[in-house]
Amino acid sequence: MIKGIIFDLDNTLMDFMKMKGRAIDAAISAMIDAGLQISKQEAQSKIDAIYKEKGIEFQKVFDFLLEEVLKDVDYKVLAAGIVAYRKAREAELTPYPHVYPTLIQLSKMGLKLGILSDAPSKEAWLRLAYLNFHHIFDAIVTFDETGERKPSPVPFKAILKKLDVAPEESLMVGDWAERDIVGASNVGMKTAFAKYGDTFDTKEHSADYELNDISELVSIVKEINKL
Amino acid sequence: MIKGIIFDLDNTLMDFMKMKGRAIDAAISAMIDAGLQISKQEAQSKIDAIYKEKGIEFQKVFDFLLEEVLKDVDYKVLAAGIVAYRKAREAELTPYPHVYPTLIQLSKMGLKLGILSDAPSKEAWLRLAYLNFHHIFDAIVTFDETGERKPSPVPFKAILKKLDVAPEESLMVGDWAERDIVGASNVGMKTAFAKYGDTFDTKEHSADYELNDISELVSIVKEINKL
Repeated sequence: MIKGIIFDLDNTLMDFMKMKGRAIDAAISAMIDAGLQISKQEAQSKIDAIYKEKGIEFQKVFDFLLEEVLKDVDYKVLAAGIVAYRKAREAELTPYPHVYPTLIQLSKMGLKLGILSDAPSKEAWLRLAYLNFHHIFDAIVTFDETGERKPSPVPFKAILKKLDVAPEESLMVGDWAERDIVGASNVGMKTAFAKYGDTFDTKEHSADYELNDISELVSIVKEINKL
Repeated sequence: MIKGIIFDLDNTLMDFMKMKGRAIDAAISAMIDAGLQISKQEAQSKIDAIYKEKGIEFQKVFDFLLEEVLKDVDYKVLAAGIVAYRKAREAELTPYPHVYPTLIQLSKMGLKLGILSDAPSKEAWLRLAYLNFHHIFDAIVTFDETGERKPSPVPFKAILKKLDVAPEESLMVGDWAERDIVGASNVGMKTAFAKYGDTFDTKEHSADYELNDISELVSIVKEINKL
């Protein structure tokens, strides 16, 4: 009997990499338009290097780029980049197809819904609020709450406790085989691999189910719960 | 002969107070919707007090509000407030009526266009980029560049130098009589009071001209330049 479903956020409920890619692309064009002397390719590779060093959630990536290219921050260029980034990000901050209707349907079936994300709390919550997910989910656990990342059992146990659901009554849905699926299995949860969000070209995974579309969850739950 | 026109930004080219008011209003509603136990009136008066103490450009106003009300920052409430604020701000970040066509027309008449703002550089430039003004104006001077505020002659001289225009060949347009108008007069510029943006209920000003609509600048310049 499944009583709760727990989702990873980035690349499971929303296409984080597409959003990030398009926002950065828009920012580079706007900075060049505002006078920055650099090719799109060079800017892209410098930004990739900054994210690689500082992490993908680093908030000062354009400041660092301008320091490197201009040895100084030109506010005209910086502001043009930030504004273009924000506009593109907001336009791209949408869930995968069928996410909203599937969540509502699962909710109406009496299931509790949770999110378990390794992203830093403030950035994760901002994305959740843009998506209106803060009104839909019963509980959300982000990195700062436990200080541990998947596949550690700590965050999994934290979200199960918040939802008041036993591991064997829960299903974890995620795109990252080694973290979401292995971690959830280790604490006794059922698992579904979000193949539609796979950015690693994952060849093998140990999940109980594989999703090509999030809406397949409805029939999986109906089957398990013999509805 | 007028060769350059210099504008104040907030409440002269755009309705800063309206934007701020609507963004804060949207944020308060969203925070209450996300679970914050407070009345709209109480939240508004607490936010007013924080802005009064920290300045209207203070970027952590919701963090401070939640610290005060909850003795802690609830990320769900914070993120809901920030996202609602950003969406409303972007929707409201538009210039006064007739600003774009007037600027383009003045530009086609061969006039140089500048902005002189007392706002901190990053916040001013972000507003400028949202408005696309960074492509329209020939020069912009914000607070951080001179470290002095109007009516000090220092920022006025800085923008005139950037535009390469003599004081007597320039016209300053602003909504703040004691700062924009008096400061510009003191360095020898002609002046126009932006009455349409007046939030102080100004009774008297010493400006050479008074504008009920920014488009009146076109005929003023034509008259002075005997075009």
